[in-house]
Amino acid sequence: MATNCIKFFQMSEFRKDPLHNKWVLIVPTRGKRPHAFSSEEVSEEKKSKKNCPFCEGNEFMTPPETDSFRNTGKPDKPGWQVRVFPNKYPALNGEIKIKSASADKIPDIVEGYGHHEIIAETPSHKKDIYSMKQEEIFLILKMYRKRYKILKRKKDIKSVFIFKNHGRAAGASLPHSHSQILALPIIPLFIEEENKVIKKAKRCIYCYLIKEAFEDKRVLLENSNFIALAPYASEYPYQLLVLPKKHQPFFEEIDEKQLILLSDVIKEIFSRYNKLLGNTPFNYFFNTPSLNKGHWNIQIMPKLIIPAGFEKGTGISINPIPPEDAIRELKRIK
Amino acid sequence: MATNCIKFFQMSEFRKDPLHNKWVLIVPTRGKRPHAFSSEEVSEEKKSKKNCPFCEGNEFMTPPETDSFRNTGKPDKPGWQVRVFPNKYPALNGEIKIKSASADKIPDIVEGYGHHEIIAETPSHKKDIYSMKQEEIFLILKMYRKRYKILKRKKDIKSVFIFKNHGRAAGASLPHSHSQILALPIIPLFIEEENKVIKKAKRCIYCYLIKEAFEDKRVLLENSNFIALAPYASEYPYQLLVLPKKHQPFFEEIDEKQLILLSDVIKEIFSRYNKLLGNTPFNYFFNTPSLNKGHWNIQIMPKLIIPAGFEKGTGISINPIPPEDAIRELKRIK
Repeated sequence: MATNCIKFFQMSEFRKDPLHNKWVLIVPTRGKRPHAFSSEEVSEEKKSKKNCPFCEGNEFMTPPETDSFRNTGKPDKPGWQVRVFPNKYPALNGEIKIKSASADKIPDIVEGYGHHEIIAETPSHKKDIYSMKQEEIFLILKMYRKRYKILKRKKDIKSVFIFKNHGRAAGASLPHSHSQILALPIIPLFIEEENKVIKKAKRCIYCYLIKEAFEDKRVLLENSNFIALAPYASEYPYQLLVLPKKHQPFFEEIDEKQLILLSDVIKEIFSRYNKLLGNTPFNYFFNTPSLNKGHWNIQIMPKLIIPAGFEKGTGISINPIPPEDAIRELKRIK
Repeated sequence: MATNCIKFFQMSEFRKDPLHNKWVLIVPTRGKRPHAFSSEEVSEEKKSKKNCPFCEGNEFMTPPETDSFRNTGKPDKPGWQVRVFPNKYPALNGEIKIKSASADKIPDIVEGYGHHEIIAETPSHKKDIYSMKQEEIFLILKMYRKRYKILKRKKDIKSVFIFKNHGRAAGASLPHSHSQILALPIIPLFIEEENKVIKKAKRCIYCYLIKEAFEDKRVLLENSNFIALAPYASEYPYQLLVLPKKHQPFFEEIDEKQLILLSDVIKEIFSRYNKLLGNTPFNYFFNTPSLNKGHWNIQIMPKLIIPAGFEKGTGISINPIPPEDAIRELKRIK
């Protein structure tokens, strides 16, 4: 670490906690110092359309786009419906190689390598998933599928992770509706653990989860392809799991018809959330097991509680709304 | 679950996520409904000394005290320095038994059982750990030790967990300085995993962590008994680990002299935090391995970042301040 180039670029590093087999991604943010945390939060929140880098007309404020769906116009010009570009402040940088992962020394280190893209979901500063039409949600899902396919094929990439943070309380740094995709040189521990369980199980564990959700009345809605349910051990109030009803391990293989059916489900979920919880902050992420088994799925988590010392120290989440109650309320709301 | 008594008391439940071997504690809060989340937050924040249940003179507002250090007065009357009482809204209730933990069905269930106590750290509404004297911190630590010993001996208790949330952003529901103790019928997964690693390791893993922190310049301060360092894979900016320098698995066995030395370290840490970060929200928790090996320890985590969709879905934390930088800044500040 004693070379000159560090002065110009501090590398991201994956570090492993030796006691809990947990990875941490250290992303040095040069120039950002403690007091920056809070003051920045306030100013970002107030950011108007004029200085929003994700707004139509402000394309020059982002790195050059890597993809878009557009009616008119050239790349990096207005006319788009969904627009993709590299994150200006990436957690991972595509130009750095994996160095090593030593096994004999207790702490493992892998240098940060990967891709980090932003998907601006709409040209409008004011629109969000609560107010979007089904056709608009469809286009976002279609872009997810497209970028997922492309990033998965890149060199040294072991997993691709699609997620969305909505609202400051849920960790969104800009208010303009957007999602993120991270392509990683490792398979996250959660996915690895899941793969182990899926591999060991005699029956399909996801089919079992669906059957059990019906029995326990934890199903919110379904159509011919998809189902939305509250998991038995929901960590968060009103948490939902969306998944294909039949085995389908690869998200990128869903077809156009399925994309429409999925956008119907997403539209209906956020319409019900809006009626019950208002424009509540939330996170969702795509869970795409890398095995040839199981069902890819989406976890949706409204941000209504703050995990604190107990959760951090024990790894046990405390949820004040039993999932059975959550479904009863979400079903009842008109 | 179809008995009449549910109308009066909904039980807490430990539920296990079958895919990730993760426990969730479902704590139904009767009467609390979605919109309550945000409105309650605002009103709690504004709570003044007059209606603060943790203030001297308002003892009648809490359940009867289980313990106190006091100069004068009877239990539940003014005159105390540190006061302990059961949580009015416990995550666990001491009167419910463990029912079962079925192994054949995929989801496991254990009914919530345990003890949940609040430690009011000071009679003053305005004082907090940033402004307390070393003698005041000493008394809080002494009470931790006392309650830890008592709760650990209770029937069916497998682990006791001391923690503190400071500030609304770190999950504190009341502004008056307080800590919490939870006595649990299970050993949290984090502790179990740690125990496995400690058991397998040929040398003491904590001694190794200390040695390595000196080599990497991640040590903030030390005295004859204790050391404060930034962990190699710190999950949070300015995270610190405080631990005895020599093997000492049982927190409850520390003596009076050690309590003084520990309060010196805590005082110094929060004085440096205050100078660098201001009165920043934070969590800390005591990690007390239940094995006959290792070093009990305290993890301190300032709350400067919001974990979002990526962290939730992958279990990978993103930390923008490398621990080496954090220590350099904390050491430099005067």
